[in-house]
Amino acid sequence: MNDQRPDLRPTDGFDVPRFSDVATFMRLPRVTTLEHVDVGLFGVPLDLGSGFRMGSREGPAAVREASRTARVENPTSGVRPFDLVNAADVGDAPVHPMKLDASVESIQRFVENLHEHDVWPLAIGGDHTITLPILRALGKARPLGLLHFDAHLDSWDVLYDTTVNNGTFVRRSLEEGLIDPTRVVQIGQRVWSGGEGNDLEFAHNAGFTVITYDRFEEMGRAAVIDETRRVLGDEPVYITYDIDALDPSEAPGCAGRAPGGLSVRDSQMILRGLTGLNVIGGDVNEVSPWLDPAGITQVAAACLAFEILCLMSTARAKASD
Amino acid sequence: MNDQRPDLRPTDGFDVPRFSDVATFMRLPRVTTLEHVDVGLFGVPLDLGSGFRMGSREGPAAVREASRTARVENPTSGVRPFDLVNAADVGDAPVHPMKLDASVESIQRFVENLHEHDVWPLAIGGDHTITLPILRALGKARPLGLLHFDAHLDSWDVLYDTTVNNGTFVRRSLEEGLIDPTRVVQIGQRVWSGGEGNDLEFAHNAGFTVITYDRFEEMGRAAVIDETRRVLGDEPVYITYDIDALDPSEAPGCAGRAPGGLSVRDSQMILRGLTGLNVIGGDVNEVSPWLDPAGITQVAAACLAFEILCLMSTARAKASD
Amino acid sequence: MNDQRPDLRPTDGFDVPRFSDVATFMRLPRVTTLEHVDVGLFGVPLDLGSGFRMGSREGPAAVREASRTARVENPTSGVRPFDLVNAADVGDAPVHPMKLDASVESIQRFVENLHEHDVWPLAIGGDHTITLPILRALGKARPLGLLHFDAHLDSWDVLYDTTVNNGTFVRRSLEEGLIDPTRVVQIGQRVWSGGEGNDLEFAHNAGFTVITYDRFEEMGRAAVIDETRRVLGDEPVYITYDIDALDPSEAPGCAGRAPGGLSVRDSQMILRGLTGLNVIGGDVNEVSPWLDPAGITQVAAACLAFEILCLMSTARAKASD
Amino acid sequence: MNDQRPDLRPTDGFDVPRFSDVATFMRLPRVTTLEHVDVGLFGVPLDLGSGFRMGSREGPAAVREASRTARVENPTSGVRPFDLVNAADVGDAPVHPMKLDASVESIQRFVENLHEHDVWPLAIGGDHTITLPILRALGKARPLGLLHFDAHLDSWDVLYDTTVNNGTFVRRSLEEGLIDPTRVVQIGQRVWSGGEGNDLEFAHNAGFTVITYDRFEEMGRAAVIDETRRVLGDEPVYITYDIDALDPSEAPGCAGRAPGGLSVRDSQMILRGLTGLNVIGGDVNEVSPWLDPAGITQVAAACLAFEILCLMSTARAKASD
Amino acid sequence: MNDQRPDLRPTDGFDVPRFSDVATFMRLPRVTTLEHVDVGLFGVPLDLGSGFRMGSREGPAAVREASRTARVENPTSGVRPFDLVNAADVGDAPVHPMKLDASVESIQRFVENLHEHDVWPLAIGGDHTITLPILRALGKARPLGLLHFDAHLDSWDVLYDTTVNNGTFVRRSLEEGLIDPTRVVQIGQRVWSGGEGNDLEFAHNAGFTVITYDRFEEMGRAAVIDETRRVLGDEPVYITYDIDALDPSEAPGCAGRAPGGLSVRDSQMILRGLTGLNVIGGDVNEVSPWLDPAGITQVAAACLAFEILCLMSTARAKASD
Amino acid sequence: MNDQRPDLRPTDGFDVPRFSDVATFMRLPRVTTLEHVDVGLFGVPLDLGSGFRMGSREGPAAVREASRTARVENPTSGVRPFDLVNAADVGDAPVHPMKLDASVESIQRFVENLHEHDVWPLAIGGDHTITLPILRALGKARPLGLLHFDAHLDSWDVLYDTTVNNGTFVRRSLEEGLIDPTRVVQIGQRVWSGGEGNDLEFAHNAGFTVITYDRFEEMGRAAVIDETRRVLGDEPVYITYDIDALDPSEAPGCAGRAPGGLSVRDSQMILRGLTGLNVIGGDVNEVSPWLDPAGITQVAAACLAFEILCLMSTARAKASD
Repeated sequence: MNDQRPDLRPTDGFDVPRFSDVATFMRLPRVTTLEHVDVGLFGVPLDLGSGFRMGSREGPAAVREASRTARVENPTSGVRPFDLVNAADVGDAPVHPMKLDASVESIQRFVENLHEHDVWPLAIGGDHTITLPILRALGKARPLGLLHFDAHLDSWDVLYDTTVNNGTFVRRSLEEGLIDPTRVVQIGQRVWSGGEGNDLEFAHNAGFTVITYDRFEEMGRAAVIDETRRVLGDEPVYITYDIDALDPSEAPGCAGRAPGGLSVRDSQMILRGLTGLNVIGGDVNEVSPWLDPAGITQVAAACLAFEILCLMSTARAKASD
Repeated sequence: MNDQRPDLRPTDGFDVPRFSDVATFMRLPRVTTLEHVDVGLFGVPLDLGSGFRMGSREGPAAVREASRTARVENPTSGVRPFDLVNAADVGDAPVHPMKLDASVESIQRFVENLHEHDVWPLAIGGDHTITLPILRALGKARPLGLLHFDAHLDSWDVLYDTTVNNGTFVRRSLEEGLIDPTRVVQIGQRVWSGGEGNDLEFAHNAGFTVITYDRFEEMGRAAVIDETRRVLGDEPVYITYDIDALDPSEAPGCAGRAPGGLSVRDSQMILRGLTGLNVIGGDVNEVSPWLDPAGITQVAAACLAFEILCLMSTARAKASD
Repeated sequence: MNDQRPDLRPTDGFDVPRFSDVATFMRLPRVTTLEHVDVGLFGVPLDLGSGFRMGSREGPAAVREASRTARVENPTSGVRPFDLVNAADVGDAPVHPMKLDASVESIQRFVENLHEHDVWPLAIGGDHTITLPILRALGKARPLGLLHFDAHLDSWDVLYDTTVNNGTFVRRSLEEGLIDPTRVVQIGQRVWSGGEGNDLEFAHNAGFTVITYDRFEEMGRAAVIDETRRVLGDEPVYITYDIDALDPSEAPGCAGRAPGGLSVRDSQMILRGLTGLNVIGGDVNEVSPWLDPAGITQVAAACLAFEILCLMSTARAKASD
Repeated sequence: MNDQRPDLRPTDGFDVPRFSDVATFMRLPRVTTLEHVDVGLFGVPLDLGSGFRMGSREGPAAVREASRTARVENPTSGVRPFDLVNAADVGDAPVHPMKLDASVESIQRFVENLHEHDVWPLAIGGDHTITLPILRALGKARPLGLLHFDAHLDSWDVLYDTTVNNGTFVRRSLEEGLIDPTRVVQIGQRVWSGGEGNDLEFAHNAGFTVITYDRFEEMGRAAVIDETRRVLGDEPVYITYDIDALDPSEAPGCAGRAPGGLSVRDSQMILRGLTGLNVIGGDVNEVSPWLDPAGITQVAAACLAFEILCLMSTARAKASD
Repeated sequence: MNDQRPDLRPTDGFDVPRFSDVATFMRLPRVTTLEHVDVGLFGVPLDLGSGFRMGSREGPAAVREASRTARVENPTSGVRPFDLVNAADVGDAPVHPMKLDASVESIQRFVENLHEHDVWPLAIGGDHTITLPILRALGKARPLGLLHFDAHLDSWDVLYDTTVNNGTFVRRSLEEGLIDPTRVVQIGQRVWSGGEGNDLEFAHNAGFTVITYDRFEEMGRAAVIDETRRVLGDEPVYITYDIDALDPSEAPGCAGRAPGGLSVRDSQMILRGLTGLNVIGGDVNEVSPWLDPAGITQVAAACLAFEILCLMSTARAKASD
Repeated sequence: MNDQRPDLRPTDGFDVPRFSDVATFMRLPRVTTLEHVDVGLFGVPLDLGSGFRMGSREGPAAVREASRTARVENPTSGVRPFDLVNAADVGDAPVHPMKLDASVESIQRFVENLHEHDVWPLAIGGDHTITLPILRALGKARPLGLLHFDAHLDSWDVLYDTTVNNGTFVRRSLEEGLIDPTRVVQIGQRVWSGGEGNDLEFAHNAGFTVITYDRFEEMGRAAVIDETRRVLGDEPVYITYDIDALDPSEAPGCAGRAPGGLSVRDSQMILRGLTGLNVIGGDVNEVSPWLDPAGITQVAAACLAFEILCLMSTARAKASD
């Protein structure tokens, strides 16, 4: 870490009780300048791309509250992200509360600005529409690898005559050259429309590596980690985690509850098993806090964001060497 | 009632227990043809016009469930609406789950179709955007009187550079000649932006009769009823009830919770005091069921819809004489 | 108070924190003998008489928990019931979890046993069926006066070909000579079936004094108290409080939520205004705790039971003079 | 599919948003005639057979709401039930809200009527009492095979001197010759009374195949599927799924919460593994929605009903060949 | 407003949607220097002084979230506080999560520091213990007037052998000369221990003006305002609002739920009627968000804090003239 | 069992419905004398040792309610504890609602008293502070073996300059010679502070057997049981179960929710696998019921207490031989 730079790290839970003061992502400083930030956590309070249930626009606020319990060391990989990078809460990407397209554009500009300041983005959604504008900001130079956790494939072509929404980001990213189909891994899928010309067929035709939940169970975590590493390789990777990848018992607070899914533990162990991967950005999305009065969904989301941060900070530290 | 017509009335709670079978508005038949319908209850599951919290797209479903307890006789006015008119659940107006403008248009077409079949509309929202397309369908021939219960004035000009949303329907209706400003009564207002060119000033300048919650308390119910009757007169009136007119203790399930508001009782007694008014349509809106785990908001909404139905059925019976 | 008798009173909140130990009604001792008990509080966990929503069988448990905050002095009347009588939690009346009629009989026997031991009963329901067997146990010698708070009249003749259920206890009590129709006061009614031969008509024909919620508002509390006192006179009175008499905002946890109702405050002030009335028993019923995640319904029920206890303890002390 | 017959299938989620209109099982048409129906989904809103907590009478309504997300293709077996059969929501079996025995009879008559119209029944409870009258309607001709998921054995002889309730249906069915003991498989059991003459002993003595949860874990899913197939064979089978078979973390909304149970995933995979089984009817029961504010229990129930439907539609299609 | 000073005001709801970004009190800037602040809003996350139910340490976080809907103009008094003063969120007073006395001291030091910087304090609790250290910081120079809304008198001498806790601050403040007994007004009381040497007697003996809830109802709002103004006069006044002053239907989220209490409306109108009072500080306390899944308690608290801010900003503006 | 002794056992669910009467632990008698008690279940309603979220003082009340469903036979081990020992609910250990240290002392005295009466203790917390005073009462004669389920290590030295709290009991117990470090097994850990001198390092240095959640998954249940048996041996063992050892999906109602944890099933099977272990006391702690509206946390806690009771009763019966 550069000596001249401020050391941006979470408020220490041994100094200030976790219930105290304004809630920020992982108790990090809410900064208004990007100068010294390596990884920027931000909210994307957009739910206008949702075909079913709303409410994920309140996801960022809920995850900020839930991340009061965030820790500093990964118990499995031993990674201590805040020793590796300066991280900060850089606020929310601006959205239009009623216009999907305008929001998608302003999210892209927000991430482009982070990118120009060499701040790596870690977003909290918001519905799954948000990944497209982030990829548009990040994937211009060259297509990225994509690691995609989800109950769904998000490869529909059109949903209610709309091409950009929470069910299409993968297909759009592919069409726009933002992702490299040979370096796409999808994990946890168990809902698709089926029939001819369906989304599962699309994924296979595109050359994606699809580890449906059925396949995940058959392969086991270790093989999944191996295959994922092999497919994603050493080039830059973006990770997007739709919270409905989780079983509803672990994440009741989302629109797309699909019983028979991943556990947080599964997800943690896969992500920890990928330590060293060149992860340059990520997001956790689809948290709708009002659907979950006990609030465990946002706790899960905060934990998964921490896992992605561990990967990003390792990659960033390596990149800075 | 015409002998040839089927008698569309609620399933009798003495025959079939209230918890049984598919939930429809007030346990009325869900019809697919409009032929014999005098008053059509329908949902408008739109929340894309909301500047703050989402979820009212699930309002119609929640009110259908809550209206399992609906009764057949008004305890104060004695009106028995189902003895006066054929009422039915005519389904939901079609909406686009992601496009506000397209939804506004399809809602209008849906109500125009009701209108063409001489079915009087009673809508359950959905956010308060829904009233504009309904008025566009109903107020073409001549401007209507408007009775508007709300914590807000809904007379903003523009909200986030959008002109049609849940905060502007009154101003738009006025501009489009759908309502007659000398026959507009607004009741329960207690939130406005203030400052110059504000929404309260607009209402006064437009010539509306604004009975803010402060004025309501000073006047008392009887005087409010008198003034409302006097202003609205004998010509056709549309009633729109934003559930946030109620105190949050009576309606926690809405985005715009503004403490210090009307009670359901206040609203019931005002509406009952207006029996005989020429009410040709109405709506209850902004119910967001996920915000209220006990579900009293939708119970309140169902009750208020019943009050409006009592007024509409009386007017319709008179019109049919 | 007799010196030889144990002084049965609540655990003192200054000695043992209110959150501590087993929950009993008003933190009173749970006794297994009736010897020294003047007033016996008991649960009646029956909901098999409910035509709509279930759950009031868990009412007694919920009210026991909620009555951890019960106090010892009435702030308006100044009555201190535990200085006047020995009160105790005498457990629950036995019920059959699946058979309504068998339960009704065992409840009656339970109260008869209390009666034989000269223990005055204060019951916590359970649905409103429970009042009939209690009156059968208490009203054998001579018809009682009845003070009945409720959103409904509970004077149906038959409900689903069943004569004893939560909608018929008043009519049955009258037919069986358990109550004196000239000494019946009903307060808070606002839901009835209407039409010919309806329940409201029945009440008027029977000679009851019906203070519907409309009349309550017109008369005001003071006049209601006066009329109630006048009608009930000095002879023994039984008080039954259906929690749905309250507005749903104050008691969301009941099956019969009817917006536009009494407040706890209204009820407290009426009951306090009746201090000196010869109240020899009472109940609070229809608390369904699962419908109210915040739990205010059972808090209200515990408060209203305390008000009835204040009246009973005053009457009992007078009777013991 | 016969060309003359209407094609009864779910409203397409790509045409009409899932949050829209009246809720029916799996968005199927709510038909009032049985003419063209192969499989009839219906509610049985009965909870009078419950020895403990009530509320499952509201299960059918909750599952109808939750099944708004129902899909059309099984992701593991590939079965597309609505391509195989005409399915419809045929309403609720009539029940008496206070009388258990009368309800049991009317449920039987309702299913007999379905049977006479050659409509295969798929019921949503309701407490577990409901299976007996369904079996009485279906098992007259010859004893059926039974696949029974449950935390309990439901083989008590008498519960509170009642022989037909939610804990006795298996024993009664055996006694009445409705099921063939050599073709009974029970899965997931982990609660029994123990001691002499207990319910577990009864099951073994009767010759049932009992795969307690302990055994399930030891055997693994594949062996369970094999044994189940072997025992049930090719003859007609009825499947009953008590939602308390699931772990409470996956189904908090039921009376009999017994930690340490099946997952929805376990259940899905067992049921999918039984594709081809001759399943001629089934039910999912014991959903008590008020116990689960997040509503995942009814989502699970809807999913399991879909799995049973996949089996039934395959069997029905084969039968129609 | 001084030109050199930054203009600290809420983020405008027309610019940035209310659901966006980090939650601060009333969407005010979270400042880390006190230089330009006139009124400092801060949290006091202490609940160790509670004799009953815990959880108010999470009150400040909940009120920050709920105050996303805060407005800028008082609809009755017309006061626009952010035009009058610079207000800011100055964070939370430091507390020890397990030690009551240490917390009380650090709260006092925190407020002393505000005082030294001429920042007027507006605190959000936390339990009612917090008022004592604030008064210790403010009332050193001369005893203050006190306006105290509460269901309780908070004048116990000792609670569980502890002298500083959430039931004693009034007595301690009097003993320490922090408040002037001739200028103390208590409103809304309805729970006291009674008996000899009780807390109500203490209040009367001390010379306080006690407007119990009974007296409040008898007097009416206007008379209460008059008497309060008369008693408090022109000298500095501190306002403390215990959220349990409200009826539980309006504030279920607090430990001391006492049915039959003030409405938010009552409180708003009293406070608005006191515009011009020399209010130099205040607090709202006892919000326990987990007790209220719908979250209306924190909405009420945010509204009441706004009312106190209106009074403080008027007084401050006058003081700055 | 001694013939002269009363047979203290749960109220039979076949005699008295489970929803009926006062809630005690496992429906056992609430005794006021210890004479005939072998195992005493008691609450410890203390949450003052919590560094984060409060509410576990209401844990005992919640577990009493939830244990209405408690059974009498262990489905795996076959143990029937109430046939082996006299068990009873002996009330709550006295606590000071505001003073941690005083509470710790009075808890110790309470358990010492049990010990003097040869009553083996089974406690329901309360936060994890409660284990230290229990061990102080039990471990005086000789250090005990300790089996510790938890997401955390609870081996901090000091937390906010406090040495006795819910994060330090293990280190204190070791320092005070209450536990034998060679006979300490910790299971389920997955949260630690890391860095130098951290709590995990402490545990290893102390010689504890730490089976982190990672190790648990690698080893599998059988190996964990073997290692635990081997380490704990035949000497007396105390079991403490922090409910946050469970995954939040199984126990949302606790302050320290740490996704990726044990299931109740894992815990049951480990504990059942330890049948025969010399368990002389135990506790289940950290249940905060208000955080879990569905209430499954307290159901889990009641089940785990039953497992510990099975072990204790077996050991006690052996000791009594």
